[in-house]
Amino acid sequence: MVDDRLNLPFTGLVSFMRVPTCTDLDAVDADIAILGAPSDEGSPWKPGARFAPRKIRELSIKYAGYGPDQHQLGYYDIDENRRFLEYERRHSRIVDCGDCDIVYTNVRRTFDNITHDVRRLLDAGVFPVVIGGDHAVTYPVVRAYSERLNVVHFDAHMDYRPFVHGVQWANGNPIRNVARLKTCHHIVQVGIRSLRTRQADVEDSRARGNDIVTIPDFRRRGPRAIVDLLPPDEPVYCSIDVDVLDLPLVPGCASSEVNGLTYDELRQTLLEVNPMLDVPADNTSQLAAQLIIEFLGRLVEHPGYRKRHPMRSATRAPRDHRRSRGRAKGR
Amino acid sequence: MVDDRLNLPFTGLVSFMRVPTCTDLDAVDADIAILGAPSDEGSPWKPGARFAPRKIRELSIKYAGYGPDQHQLGYYDIDENRRFLEYERRHSRIVDCGDCDIVYTNVRRTFDNITHDVRRLLDAGVFPVVIGGDHAVTYPVVRAYSERLNVVHFDAHMDYRPFVHGVQWANGNPIRNVARLKTCHHIVQVGIRSLRTRQADVEDSRARGNDIVTIPDFRRRGPRAIVDLLPPDEPVYCSIDVDVLDLPLVPGCASSEVNGLTYDELRQTLLEVNPMLDVPADNTSQLAAQLIIEFLGRLVEHPGYRKRHPMRSATRAPRDHRRSRGRAKGR
Amino acid sequence: MVDDRLNLPFTGLVSFMRVPTCTDLDAVDADIAILGAPSDEGSPWKPGARFAPRKIRELSIKYAGYGPDQHQLGYYDIDENRRFLEYERRHSRIVDCGDCDIVYTNVRRTFDNITHDVRRLLDAGVFPVVIGGDHAVTYPVVRAYSERLNVVHFDAHMDYRPFVHGVQWANGNPIRNVARLKTCHHIVQVGIRSLRTRQADVEDSRARGNDIVTIPDFRRRGPRAIVDLLPPDEPVYCSIDVDVLDLPLVPGCASSEVNGLTYDELRQTLLEVNPMLDVPADNTSQLAAQLIIEFLGRLVEHPGYRKRHPMRSATRAPRDHRRSRGRAKGR
Amino acid sequence: MVDDRLNLPFTGLVSFMRVPTCTDLDAVDADIAILGAPSDEGSPWKPGARFAPRKIRELSIKYAGYGPDQHQLGYYDIDENRRFLEYERRHSRIVDCGDCDIVYTNVRRTFDNITHDVRRLLDAGVFPVVIGGDHAVTYPVVRAYSERLNVVHFDAHMDYRPFVHGVQWANGNPIRNVARLKTCHHIVQVGIRSLRTRQADVEDSRARGNDIVTIPDFRRRGPRAIVDLLPPDEPVYCSIDVDVLDLPLVPGCASSEVNGLTYDELRQTLLEVNPMLDVPADNTSQLAAQLIIEFLGRLVEHPGYRKRHPMRSATRAPRDHRRSRGRAKGR
Amino acid sequence: MVDDRLNLPFTGLVSFMRVPTCTDLDAVDADIAILGAPSDEGSPWKPGARFAPRKIRELSIKYAGYGPDQHQLGYYDIDENRRFLEYERRHSRIVDCGDCDIVYTNVRRTFDNITHDVRRLLDAGVFPVVIGGDHAVTYPVVRAYSERLNVVHFDAHMDYRPFVHGVQWANGNPIRNVARLKTCHHIVQVGIRSLRTRQADVEDSRARGNDIVTIPDFRRRGPRAIVDLLPPDEPVYCSIDVDVLDLPLVPGCASSEVNGLTYDELRQTLLEVNPMLDVPADNTSQLAAQLIIEFLGRLVEHPGYRKRHPMRSATRAPRDHRRSRGRAKGR
Amino acid sequence: MVDDRLNLPFTGLVSFMRVPTCTDLDAVDADIAILGAPSDEGSPWKPGARFAPRKIRELSIKYAGYGPDQHQLGYYDIDENRRFLEYERRHSRIVDCGDCDIVYTNVRRTFDNITHDVRRLLDAGVFPVVIGGDHAVTYPVVRAYSERLNVVHFDAHMDYRPFVHGVQWANGNPIRNVARLKTCHHIVQVGIRSLRTRQADVEDSRARGNDIVTIPDFRRRGPRAIVDLLPPDEPVYCSIDVDVLDLPLVPGCASSEVNGLTYDELRQTLLEVNPMLDVPADNTSQLAAQLIIEFLGRLVEHPGYRKRHPMRSATRAPRDHRRSRGRAKGR
Repeated sequence: MVDDRLNLPFTGLVSFMRVPTCTDLDAVDADIAILGAPSDEGSPWKPGARFAPRKIRELSIKYAGYGPDQHQLGYYDIDENRRFLEYERRHSRIVDCGDCDIVYTNVRRTFDNITHDVRRLLDAGVFPVVIGGDHAVTYPVVRAYSERLNVVHFDAHMDYRPFVHGVQWANGNPIRNVARLKTCHHIVQVGIRSLRTRQADVEDSRARGNDIVTIPDFRRRGPRAIVDLLPPDEPVYCSIDVDVLDLPLVPGCASSEVNGLTYDELRQTLLEVNPMLDVPADNTSQLAAQLIIEFLGRLVEHPGYRKRHPMRSATRAPRDHRRSRGRAKGR
Repeated sequence: MVDDRLNLPFTGLVSFMRVPTCTDLDAVDADIAILGAPSDEGSPWKPGARFAPRKIRELSIKYAGYGPDQHQLGYYDIDENRRFLEYERRHSRIVDCGDCDIVYTNVRRTFDNITHDVRRLLDAGVFPVVIGGDHAVTYPVVRAYSERLNVVHFDAHMDYRPFVHGVQWANGNPIRNVARLKTCHHIVQVGIRSLRTRQADVEDSRARGNDIVTIPDFRRRGPRAIVDLLPPDEPVYCSIDVDVLDLPLVPGCASSEVNGLTYDELRQTLLEVNPMLDVPADNTSQLAAQLIIEFLGRLVEHPGYRKRHPMRSATRAPRDHRRSRGRAKGR
Repeated sequence: MVDDRLNLPFTGLVSFMRVPTCTDLDAVDADIAILGAPSDEGSPWKPGARFAPRKIRELSIKYAGYGPDQHQLGYYDIDENRRFLEYERRHSRIVDCGDCDIVYTNVRRTFDNITHDVRRLLDAGVFPVVIGGDHAVTYPVVRAYSERLNVVHFDAHMDYRPFVHGVQWANGNPIRNVARLKTCHHIVQVGIRSLRTRQADVEDSRARGNDIVTIPDFRRRGPRAIVDLLPPDEPVYCSIDVDVLDLPLVPGCASSEVNGLTYDELRQTLLEVNPMLDVPADNTSQLAAQLIIEFLGRLVEHPGYRKRHPMRSATRAPRDHRRSRGRAKGR
Repeated sequence: MVDDRLNLPFTGLVSFMRVPTCTDLDAVDADIAILGAPSDEGSPWKPGARFAPRKIRELSIKYAGYGPDQHQLGYYDIDENRRFLEYERRHSRIVDCGDCDIVYTNVRRTFDNITHDVRRLLDAGVFPVVIGGDHAVTYPVVRAYSERLNVVHFDAHMDYRPFVHGVQWANGNPIRNVARLKTCHHIVQVGIRSLRTRQADVEDSRARGNDIVTIPDFRRRGPRAIVDLLPPDEPVYCSIDVDVLDLPLVPGCASSEVNGLTYDELRQTLLEVNPMLDVPADNTSQLAAQLIIEFLGRLVEHPGYRKRHPMRSATRAPRDHRRSRGRAKGR
Repeated sequence: MVDDRLNLPFTGLVSFMRVPTCTDLDAVDADIAILGAPSDEGSPWKPGARFAPRKIRELSIKYAGYGPDQHQLGYYDIDENRRFLEYERRHSRIVDCGDCDIVYTNVRRTFDNITHDVRRLLDAGVFPVVIGGDHAVTYPVVRAYSERLNVVHFDAHMDYRPFVHGVQWANGNPIRNVARLKTCHHIVQVGIRSLRTRQADVEDSRARGNDIVTIPDFRRRGPRAIVDLLPPDEPVYCSIDVDVLDLPLVPGCASSEVNGLTYDELRQTLLEVNPMLDVPADNTSQLAAQLIIEFLGRLVEHPGYRKRHPMRSATRAPRDHRRSRGRAKGR
Repeated sequence: MVDDRLNLPFTGLVSFMRVPTCTDLDAVDADIAILGAPSDEGSPWKPGARFAPRKIRELSIKYAGYGPDQHQLGYYDIDENRRFLEYERRHSRIVDCGDCDIVYTNVRRTFDNITHDVRRLLDAGVFPVVIGGDHAVTYPVVRAYSERLNVVHFDAHMDYRPFVHGVQWANGNPIRNVARLKTCHHIVQVGIRSLRTRQADVEDSRARGNDIVTIPDFRRRGPRAIVDLLPPDEPVYCSIDVDVLDLPLVPGCASSEVNGLTYDELRQTLLEVNPMLDVPADNTSQLAAQLIIEFLGRLVEHPGYRKRHPMRSATRAPRDHRRSRGRAKGR
């Protein structure tokens, strides 16, 4: 069905890539859900990541295609000469669920809201893509999963600070929080390089058995090495702080650092890893929008994903969501 | 019905004051519709008014009320100690219809889209509130009306340039365009003061019989005088360029000028005039959001409006929209 | 003693008005202490007030006087043709104590820090001037006082939201928190005008016996009326949200509103009220720096203040701070 | 002669109001010359006034009139219903002479350049309008005049600092410098109000016999009082620092202060004073452009000006510039 | 001839590199002409490229040389240890012709103006360098040429959208427009990589026989490959959208994309290609100024260019412009 | 001793890395002193480097470590897995001495102040780290040294302009000034690449025997080559203009240029060179803070530095500073 509107990116109400919206998380009928977690109380320097989900949505519209003839559902990769996300966009298999409710001055309750929302999506067999907010939100997202998973953490910083001085839920703590979850198996931390890195955090992380891949490590061993560090055929959760990218790529990011990954290095690694679960993209920038879209484009082509979300014709009768997903080990 | 979300203004998908959205203009079931017309090709200096409807929507959310207990449908005026818009918000009598489609490099087609959209709303008995875009959009909005109307035009500039050099649809032309409409009766231009005013435009406007009220005139005669310049009991269309306000109130406005109205002077005049039709608020700023909300608050209390849009209980059966509206006396 | 440096405002280490610093609150030897409370987790819209104390300090340096001959301790009021603060600056009776420690994601602990710091100053007989941060910090400051006091609250907003949804310490709550303190007697709220005002908050405030002075009220009755609403000869605590000023005066303030006080109206009222206790200046701007300085200039001239802080020669032996102050009722 | 270009303000090479340019000051054939003095080394806080002449020129183009029919030489004042500057624009009696050469790190040489350039214009019988730069440039401009003159100085600050610490040419010194010129007779300082005012400067200024008109003075006595403070029928030099205007009118000005003049108060005073010589407008903003244009509009209508610059037909033979002006003492 | 002015870049009236100006296109006596085409109505996202010619001119002044001794006509390349553009600058063989007239809301007329202006320059034997504006202006520029030419198009985007929905002249269409010109022979599109690329546009371009060189292609084959794709000894028209450069190099560009060319890659390719015709640099940034200057520096050293524009002594008699150029097929 | 404060970077009074302050240069008891020289009168384009020392101090706080457990004196390098600066931070061997006094409009006196302050530090055996300000300040810093030294100058520009037109102390002159000092032996200029480079300056520099290493030279020969150009075992003074780095790394720098060094290239070179004296970091950015910290980290590990500044226990009695340093030739 062709829309006769031009739909320039500065017009119209906003949702991620202009996909349908559904703010009632108990009524989601889709494969993939965009969910914002606009919390930034955990930021020790410039706050403002709270505006990231809204800004990323607005910028994602540039990739929605526009014009009656120009309509291109999904996107086209000129280097590979093929299309991605076309099916999903056409059949509304992606929805935008809006944002988790944020309770300012009460981070615990905010985190409960995030976990609750993600869990509702998981229970409905929907694949959640969570957009922060600062990196603290990774913990409440990951704890929503009931299955065993491994974590790949892209970041310039360890995010592994101990819980002292009454601070446990800030953006320096999430990976330490995640590491204590029973469901969390192996953790790989990629891109760590900040001068602010604490030696004790590095030691604690390694003591747990986590792998830390610095930028020189990464350059030496290549993206494939990240995959080799993960147990084969197990779910992988991907957490991306955009400051893993090099400083000039993310000038709007309050914690950006020199000597980071190029966009292509991160992209290639994501394609290698092919995480089966989800990606919270913290912080702000147009790169985040593009990264999410490219990530989704490859994700839905992955055999593991397709097995769980088989293609359906648009006219197919409403299916039983939960059964068709099945995330448990029995799958 | 109480929502248990806090709904802070930086969270969630955006619509004007968080009212329900309805982008299918043939299916609007409401009394009042917000409609954006984000066109700025008619701006001879800094463009960017195209982002105004989106920005005004975002800022209007601050007035949506938030928190489970704090929920306040409509708003409260502390000076008058009474509430406004409560009924409308509760019964979803206001909807946000998104934006008219903009066809860049083709202003005629953009204008056709605007007129078409407004007409659909009028035909459905819905009261349109149009948010520009630059002031050029006033013409395609007004020409959508089929009944005779008078126009009150608040602006620092005449917007009455002749059609020469192939320019007829820019933001210097709309009131001259409107003046040529058969439906347009009397025009009152309030706040004109720019040093860029053309003498010939003033003469042309007066030659047609329009009234021009400069700032000194306005200060001498008061808001009531505007009403006295209008024929009694006739529909009045209100067109507000926010640069009618004083320069320090609208610093983000590319055409702001010194010696303008205060916010209260404009507000009082609107309450006096009590325009029965609609208000396109051109340009950008939080003031625009507040102005629209306060305008709507008073509008729906007006006997003329209430006669056409009588209160209904929320459980009332779907009404026949068109019959219950009836905008001109003859209709 | 003349410094031979020019000390232009962009040079040198920063303290409020270049007064001496003392970050050990147990060792303060001064009459007046500047204390920052850079907390903004209670902001429901744009955060950033955390940077206000630092910015206000930097801008206050412009009023420090500079150049070997130009040195002017304190400041000169050309309209009154007299100098203020000269004695205090010369004898270092003002110190800058830096900031309270902020524990992000843990507002309760932040508030404990603020109360603890203010109490140490009060116990030492020092008059604290607290610079926020968002307005939430007013509560932990006021609760540090052990004597009975009245509160004058300048603001565009009530800040009187009830404690629901787990939110008690945000910037909508401080005056309701203050109102529950045993030490808090009468409250006067001046300048309330936001369209976001909750009717129930107004009713709750009035039910407690508080006075609410809207802008039209204020214009009708004048600054003197504020004084008349307060019990005579009792301590008055002043809490100023800079958004009580008119929108164009505080464009950098996330909550600024139209139709506010002029700078002079606020200044005159402060001079009339002559609060004997302190002033937390929330939010950011150069006006805040000037306001604090002018406030201090008049404060130290007040008989009540002088009685408690008599002038001393510079060579006088170290005095016993606590005895000379004496803030208890017995005074 | 009609130009068939639309000439929108963002197009084309830039000169003040699009008047002809002439950078060879020995070849100027005009009545009025715009001259920039983009020096800001004398600024003790944020520099950047060096960009003001360029910016003011760019913004002045908005007042140049545009479009084949819209062409309006000069401008139209709607309140007075008459045109100004038309003759001057049509007959190219105004030229833009570009900027004085600035020698960074060598203010003395910069000042020599300014004086030299202004003197060349005066010798040619051309009326110079100098645009700063910071206020320090007033001194090198005034010292270019060889006739006795009086000075009206609009400013929030005294600019009367003594010459100590090796600083004599900064933006705190110009009026003290001017006061020592033999040619300088009476000085009136209007709008002084900064908290940074030095008491000794006020005393020094008054000791010389200068008048200082504070804002309350001005409000009490009105614009006419300024005229009454000046000797009748003597040349008056006008020096306007835009920070004489109220803070919200000049937010881009590094030294703006609260409680300043409104635009209209300044404008009315200029019309009353009707200075016969020139006006350096320091600092940056669109207001500066408008102020210069309105000032010129009235200036050229003044009998004294017209006597010296009688209207000529465009075809008139080249006149002897110097004789027709007559600036000598005999006047 | 030595100028004794320092001419710092923030002083003086502005023209490209301070070359002489000539806005009468029928009177141009030069080899190279700078011409602005500040149209941005074709931009589907942030407008503002209309200010690019003015901004690029201002920034180009930094390369004009300054100071009496420092004067360096043209520029010096330290890596090659030789000077460029010296002769041209000294003999005023470059002029700045200002901007084409823009008719807002009427793109067709704007395009006619552009074509008309470029054609006048070509007819006079002048080599035009056109500065946009958005990329839509490439079409009206290229259609001004009457000789057969090839096009190299540097861009992140195809700019090859079909003409539907009434949009033919926007910044997505120019290369498709150019491709339909009879004069246009081969087209090479370099740097295409945006996720927004339409598959159909790629297919249409290739179907016409155009070459598309993606970034990986370019990196594999090197700049020399671009030359090999062009017919030897034929005129080449170069169209450069600065978004062909990598995102961090052009942060001010509304359409910037990751993974673009480095400055050196683009520069090397231009030197290899040695286009004999011209280069419209769309969009804004200092890089654009530098790119144009370096491009011109090499262009005038090229044998083909020198043959058409032989060096002349400064005292040479006025030449017959048109004959000495000769752009017709006979060359 | 553990501080129980969290000390987030936006709280507290500011000094470089929160080290102790000492503004009385005659009373400094430390090994290393941070000293600001906020002069920017020598900037021919955008001024503002005067704010760099203050901004760099503020950003350096991010590297100070925070939180009771998180306290990390000095910093940790994850790639080398070791700590730096720990001893110095713990024993307060680094102090922040504030800024040199700037005398606006009088650069000579400003330079005298800078030289005087640096000399006092050197006489006290303290290693000065000077933060500009524009690059002109390098001269007054270097002339404070009484011993023979070599200079490595990192910059995109030669800074070797001759003294003409009365300009000798601007930011184009410092290396030529330094080259004339009797104490200055060999000079190596690294990274020169600006299109604004004067050929004559290059020739003059080479004629003196200086080495100029362009970016292609540097890439060909590596950081080690810089060391090889210096006489072994002689003091080396390092002067770093941050525009030696690539444009996207220093977007806030008014003179940034394409094709510069990466952060790592500069860092590696500094480690190779191991300058024994000091580093003025001109201009502004967070990179400057990080660069200074990393530089200091390696400097204090160097045998030459350690010999002069042997480690001492914190309880050691006050030492005789001057004797333990010994910078004279006898060393």
